[in-house]
Amino acid sequence: MTITITAFETSPDRGRGLARDMGVRWALEEVGQAYDVRLLSFAAMKEPAHRALHPFGQIPTYEDGDLVLFESGAIVLHIAQHHAGLLPGDANARARAVTWMFAALSTVEPPIVERSMATLIERDKPWYNERLPIIEGRVRVQLDQLSSRLGDTDWLDDEFSAGDLLMVTVLRRLAGSGLLEERPNLCAYIARGEARPAYQRAFDAQLAVFTGRPSTG
Amino acid sequence: MTITITAFETSPDRGRGLARDMGVRWALEEVGQAYDVRLLSFAAMKEPAHRALHPFGQIPTYEDGDLVLFESGAIVLHIAQHHAGLLPGDANARARAVTWMFAALSTVEPPIVERSMATLIERDKPWYNERLPIIEGRVRVQLDQLSSRLGDTDWLDDEFSAGDLLMVTVLRRLAGSGLLEERPNLCAYIARGEARPAYQRAFDAQLAVFTGRPSTG
Repeated sequence: MTITITAFETSPDRGRGLARDMGVRWALEEVGQAYDVRLLSFAAMKEPAHRALHPFGQIPTYEDGDLVLFESGAIVLHIAQHHAGLLPGDANARARAVTWMFAALSTVEPPIVERSMATLIERDKPWYNERLPIIEGRVRVQLDQLSSRLGDTDWLDDEFSAGDLLMVTVLRRLAGSGLLEERPNLCAYIARGEARPAYQRAFDAQLAVFTGRPSTG
Repeated sequence: MTITITAFETSPDRGRGLARDMGVRWALEEVGQAYDVRLLSFAAMKEPAHRALHPFGQIPTYEDGDLVLFESGAIVLHIAQHHAGLLPGDANARARAVTWMFAALSTVEPPIVERSMATLIERDKPWYNERLPIIEGRVRVQLDQLSSRLGDTDWLDDEFSAGDLLMVTVLRRLAGSGLLEERPNLCAYIARGEARPAYQRAFDAQLAVFTGRPSTG
C-alpha cells in the first residue's frame, strides 16, 4: 500500500520547512515509512478535487488506500499509533505524549501564528508597532511556561515522542524573531530535534521541492 | 477509581459554558462516566501545586489515579478512546473523527479566539474598528468551508463523534457575534449538539458552579 501526502508545489517559506507537510514528513521518516508526495499549486488546492480530500483547501493530506486524512496533528497521531517509535509503550506515558501534541497545536502555536500573520499582513498598518509587542507578550508567556516545564531535560516527557515532534515544529516558526534566544533551553531543545536523522531527511526532502534538486535521502 | 477534573471557581464567562472544562464535562456525560470537580481561583491556577499538573497554569486538568492530563482536546480524546460512544468502531472512521478534533482546535478555533481576544482587549484601541473586520474575514473563510463540508448532514462524518463535540464547543464561542446566523446549517448543527442530553447535563453542572445552586443532573 502506498502512502501519499500533499505539499506545496511552491512553498511560501522557500524551503525553510515551516509548511505543514514538514511534521508529517518527519513523522514518516521517524517510523521508517516510505511515502509519495503529490505537489499542488495554490490554485489546485482550492479546486473541488482537493477540497474533497481537505475541506479547508490546505496541505497536507494523507492517503492510504481508502483512508483520507487532513490536519497535520491528526496525521502525525495516526502515524504514531500505527508504527513504533513516536509514542511510548506505557499507556499513561502515551496519553501524556498525546497531551503534548495538543499543547503544541492548541496552546503554544496560536499566538505564534498570530505573530507571523501580523508580520506578514499588518506590517504596513499604523498599529503594527504598538500591537506587535502585545502579541509577543502572549508568545513569551507560553514560552516561559514551556521553558520552565522542560527545565534541563532532553524531551518533554522522558523519551522523544510525537509531542516533541510537533512542539519543535511549532517553535521553529519563531526562528528569526529573537524570542527563542531569551530561553537557551528551548533553543537547545529545538536543536536536539533538528539533529535527529529523521528530521534531516524530512527537511532535505521538502527543501528539494523548492530547489528542484532531487533529495538524496 | 475517581476521576477529578479542575474548573474555574468563578468562570469569566458567567456560566455560559465557554470555559474549557465544558467539552470535558460533555465527553464524560456522553460516555456515562461520573467525575468530581475541584474548583480553582485564578490565583490557585498559577501556584506551583497546580502548575505541576498543568504547565500552562490553566483549567481543565484530568486526574485518574496516577494519570494526570491537561489540554481539553487530549482529555476528550483519552475519554473517547477508553469508553464507547465518542468514536466509531471502524478504524478509518475513528481516524477521521480524530481529524475533526484537530480541525476544530487547530484550524477553526484560532481565528475565533483571536476575535474574542480582540473584543476583550483591543476594544479601546484606535485600530479596533479597522482590525475587527480583518479577523472576522478569517473566521468567515473557515465557517464557509465548514458549512460547505457539513451540507445538510447531521454530523461531520456519519455518526456523532468527539470531533463534533469539539467542533460544536468551538463554534459556540461565536454566539452573539452575528457570524453564525449567516450559515443556517451551522446554527442547526450547534443546536443539535446542544440538544443532546449529555450536553445539557454538562451545561447545567458548569452553570451550577456559577449560580451556586447544586446541579440536579
